[in-house]
Amino acid sequence: MSAPDSAPDTAPPLHAPLQHRRGWRHDGAQVAAIDDILAEEVPVALVYNGISHAVMMATPADLEDFALGFSLAEGIIERPGELRAVERADHGPGIELALTIPPARFARLKERRRALTGRTGCGLCGIESLDSAIRPLAPLPAGPGLSARAIAAAMAGLAAGQVLNRESHAVHAAAWAGLDGTIHLLREDVGRHNALDKLTGALARAGLDPLAGFLAVTSRCSYEIVHKAAQAGITAVAAVSAPTAYAVRLAEAANIALIAFARGERHTAFTGAARIAP
Amino acid sequence: MSAPDSAPDTAPPLHAPLQHRRGWRHDGAQVAAIDDILAEEVPVALVYNGISHAVMMATPADLEDFALGFSLAEGIIERPGELRAVERADHGPGIELALTIPPARFARLKERRRALTGRTGCGLCGIESLDSAIRPLAPLPAGPGLSARAIAAAMAGLAAGQVLNRESHAVHAAAWAGLDGTIHLLREDVGRHNALDKLTGALARAGLDPLAGFLAVTSRCSYEIVHKAAQAGITAVAAVSAPTAYAVRLAEAANIALIAFARGERHTAFTGAARIAP
Repeated sequence: MSAPDSAPDTAPPLHAPLQHRRGWRHDGAQVAAIDDILAEEVPVALVYNGISHAVMMATPADLEDFALGFSLAEGIIERPGELRAVERADHGPGIELALTIPPARFARLKERRRALTGRTGCGLCGIESLDSAIRPLAPLPAGPGLSARAIAAAMAGLAAGQVLNRESHAVHAAAWAGLDGTIHLLREDVGRHNALDKLTGALARAGLDPLAGFLAVTSRCSYEIVHKAAQAGITAVAAVSAPTAYAVRLAEAANIALIAFARGERHTAFTGAARIAP
Repeated sequence: MSAPDSAPDTAPPLHAPLQHRRGWRHDGAQVAAIDDILAEEVPVALVYNGISHAVMMATPADLEDFALGFSLAEGIIERPGELRAVERADHGPGIELALTIPPARFARLKERRRALTGRTGCGLCGIESLDSAIRPLAPLPAGPGLSARAIAAAMAGLAAGQVLNRESHAVHAAAWAGLDGTIHLLREDVGRHNALDKLTGALARAGLDPLAGFLAVTSRCSYEIVHKAAQAGITAVAAVSAPTAYAVRLAEAANIALIAFARGERHTAFTGAARIAP
């Protein structure tokens, strides 16, 4: 009798965040076949109470955090506990996340979709008119003081914690740092908005106070990063790269300290500079 | 009699692609106020025959190219000539692009929207289910031969041509290079998918043959870049940074040569290596 050839119970999910791939490296006149490790991205369908709502290209990791952060950021639920279940099912073409929300929230989601005002992942595309494009932001309460040393420590911790990016060089990260700069949570994704949705989802699941730390991101700081931070109640954002002018105006309106070009001992504060001890 | 204080005929548009902004630069224990130049991003509403279809955050430059490239990529029109007019109107909250398309195309767009299968800018979000997520790609015809020297020349030209990014450090670029590596067209945007829509729009307006050159992009090469390239009939893509595994599979299926990590004399070909002369 031969051994059973069914998949073992511990079979890895169909879609893994890193993939090996053959490449041909040219270096001057030399060509060599190499084995490279690339970041995966797969279509992830968010299905609420049986109804498919949106599909996002995302790194297949930390999808429970993603489901929660996305659902909160899109206003589909209002409190973390309202996301009652998340079930991941891997298929050939992508991943389905079957999400369960309370009937009242589901009714509201259906109503919104009927009115064609559903919003999708990056926080803007899918919106149809200028009037509805910019969702109003209530200014946040006064945020805590920060120090240049904590910002530098957080950026160093952010770089050190990017395990997927170290292999693939194609993945953004968003991290949550305490006021001393210690990284408490870090999430990665090929999409920077997804990395942030994963992080805010993880923050909500951990029950951490958004006033007790700040956000550190590997990427440039655009509209969507500041908007998602504000929605999550985060009062300070430090980014490795440049902000957009729009992001700076939005941070100002939302009372968020926006720190950019945060590298080594250096950074530039575009808003909230008075909160930062040198 | 005082001079008229109305705006001169040559008043710049309300939304310019670069903005000056005050920042506070920390460097160790030093803090200095600086004037920085940041990239602007604004909501751009695409309004077809009077009906608002989508809003994208974009760099307010080359918006005629953007309108054409977006309309072709989304399948709203099938030929460049079907975009009969593009009128830009700057408002406080953003920019409206009033686009005129033939009645038959507009009827199809309305029908599609009724069926809730409208697609938005990054090529995926806004899609609702896994089945409709991955738009089938017909394989492209065999592309022309390339040389490592032409790829290196194109990447150098790409870097040299990024005028907005030189000031703002926050803008992606997509460029069209001839087979000798000479850059013929280059477009910039805070969103890499927008930069590519602008480029493919410019390519269509210029009537250039997509088989007579290749695409060079500053960013990582993800799903959306390869998908948009395939839709535009482009058979080779060279990117400064890493590809995703999904992008490599898509390039293979579409018969596109995908060249990544293209820096100086080096690159790695993940598909189409046989087309590249060392």
